[in-house]
Amino acid sequence: MRIGIVGGGQLGRMLALAAYPLGHTILSLDCNADAPAGQVAPLIVGGFSDEHALAQLAEGSDVITFDFENVPADSADWLAGHTTVLPGANALRVAQDRILEKTLFRELGIPTPQFAAVDDQSSLDAAIEVTGIPAVMKTRRLGYDGKGQRVVNSREQALEAMDQLGRSDLILESLVSFQREVSVIAVRSQTGEVLSYPLTENVHRGGILRTSIAPAPHGEVLIGVASKHIERLMNYLDYVGVLALELFDCDGTLVANEFAPRVHNSGHWTIEGAATSQFENHIRAIAGMPLGSTGMCATSAGMVNFIGGLPPAGKVLEVTGAHFHDYGKLPRPGRKVGHATVTAADAQGLASSMAVLTAMAESIQA
Amino acid sequence: MRIGIVGGGQLGRMLALAAYPLGHTILSLDCNADAPAGQVAPLIVGGFSDEHALAQLAEGSDVITFDFENVPADSADWLAGHTTVLPGANALRVAQDRILEKTLFRELGIPTPQFAAVDDQSSLDAAIEVTGIPAVMKTRRLGYDGKGQRVVNSREQALEAMDQLGRSDLILESLVSFQREVSVIAVRSQTGEVLSYPLTENVHRGGILRTSIAPAPHGEVLIGVASKHIERLMNYLDYVGVLALELFDCDGTLVANEFAPRVHNSGHWTIEGAATSQFENHIRAIAGMPLGSTGMCATSAGMVNFIGGLPPAGKVLEVTGAHFHDYGKLPRPGRKVGHATVTAADAQGLASSMAVLTAMAESIQA
Repeated sequence: MRIGIVGGGQLGRMLALAAYPLGHTILSLDCNADAPAGQVAPLIVGGFSDEHALAQLAEGSDVITFDFENVPADSADWLAGHTTVLPGANALRVAQDRILEKTLFRELGIPTPQFAAVDDQSSLDAAIEVTGIPAVMKTRRLGYDGKGQRVVNSREQALEAMDQLGRSDLILESLVSFQREVSVIAVRSQTGEVLSYPLTENVHRGGILRTSIAPAPHGEVLIGVASKHIERLMNYLDYVGVLALELFDCDGTLVANEFAPRVHNSGHWTIEGAATSQFENHIRAIAGMPLGSTGMCATSAGMVNFIGGLPPAGKVLEVTGAHFHDYGKLPRPGRKVGHATVTAADAQGLASSMAVLTAMAESIQA
Repeated sequence: MRIGIVGGGQLGRMLALAAYPLGHTILSLDCNADAPAGQVAPLIVGGFSDEHALAQLAEGSDVITFDFENVPADSADWLAGHTTVLPGANALRVAQDRILEKTLFRELGIPTPQFAAVDDQSSLDAAIEVTGIPAVMKTRRLGYDGKGQRVVNSREQALEAMDQLGRSDLILESLVSFQREVSVIAVRSQTGEVLSYPLTENVHRGGILRTSIAPAPHGEVLIGVASKHIERLMNYLDYVGVLALELFDCDGTLVANEFAPRVHNSGHWTIEGAATSQFENHIRAIAGMPLGSTGMCATSAGMVNFIGGLPPAGKVLEVTGAHFHDYGKLPRPGRKVGHATVTAADAQGLASSMAVLTAMAESIQA
């Protein structure tokens, strides 16, 4: 099958590498001629709203998917008028707007922080009534990696945050006190089968994911809850492919933060740590193939992001159980340029390898 | 690192897919413009003795390797005069000549059938003295997948076989009575570290590998012996990369049949069944990177070759634990066009999935 990918970043690249053994070809669209996916598959260089580029992609694809959720939903609609688009534009639309997203969580009975739209000073006061203080002011759209958000501890700070974030199209959310961040990743097939990967525990710093481990410690009960949440969400959206749901663990209650309608950084450990990687299962799903097992093929697995630059591959691969993933990107501060995965026979082995890799990652970021 | 591959078949294709995450680029050389590796990496179209094509490959590569052992050793020498070539031309030379190969086995204390060169009628009689009858007459060079060999039960049949196989440059080997065929695959790094994969049990039919399972049942003692054999061979050749040694299991004595100086069909199960695949470890070795664990990441794994055509991918992926590998080749009788791997939690689960996949493979070959 000819698979088109809107976005040619590292996710597109890893999707391509998973698609080839299944007999598919890949064509991706990105505005950068040196996009990572373009190093392993043909690339159309063009903007996500460039109708000529979109037409080229549609012409060359039996099914189109995304490596990026902020593709204009109108572009997704346009593509859907010409070929099959999975997941559908509806999932993108909801994921792109924090108000729609949290409203849907609430409707589906998925706990989420208190929230209210903020577009001017009077709606701010009403919003503070709802969320209380401290709270988090965020742009409704186009936020990623912690960009476009401010924690506010007073009405004055909230007003300042409004100024900084553009005054309207904002959302105020109550600040959740959580012990840790976790995510659940699941895949849904065209026949409606849903399979969840084990719960993953994630560590962010500066709004950027740094490390993940799976299965999340003490997550036996939580994964049951998280799986029900994500299944409800995917069924509601009639979703096809992989979706990631990020959650706060608040004393054993899972509170949904956001979802990503795509393969997700917190699922990179599945390449070596699961029987079928998130990339392979996303491709299987959108291509109408049966899903593969989401079970683990190691007792423990973990992932360390390399941000701003890569440590020497040889050093990474000396670490017990380590695998190296270079995205083929030029180093730049704050840029995700690669990751290491670790598989281990026990939690202690995992912790020891993760500590070495984390130190390597941090020495580069410094 | 820029890695060049002489040969762009399915092995080159799977090497390329393993090389990308490690940050390498691939350039391959093949005489067919539609070679499988060319679908996932740049391809130079040219013959293996075409100096212009070889020069292009050398120019574009920091290290060159092979997906095919019958590359003219002179071409390997020529390439080695321009860039690094791993494994070295010496390993190709030995593997290409059954007399050199079996002489080396004998020198290294690796049991191998009785054998003698046959170039004319008088050497035939001397050879029969050595091997006895029945025996196998083979061409010294360029045999693969059972081509270029005949079992002979009498001097008359031996004379007929000589006529059929070209009269000279032949080898007569004693016919070994074996219970099963097994192989050991190992990787050797540039620092001389050798790691063996678990022993694999293989089933051939018509000289072509049909199925493999690992670990080979009742192979606990044998793998120790096989690992010592392959380590001695690799150390002698100062080998770098993956090498496969095919052996007959004769009542618990392992008798070496031949070796392949490359990744091997009987190691395809390692993609999903081992912590590090043979393809990744070959790339790590030739690129001077630390080797990865050759341990299994499932209790049992198996591989079924698809020969002459592919079953529908959807049917294959419905089988418990199955993964699908399409080489992007046009179907043709006798041609290896893909394979399925199975991982399983126990031998019974493996056997049941292998049975279904083998039936699919056979229904196509029929």
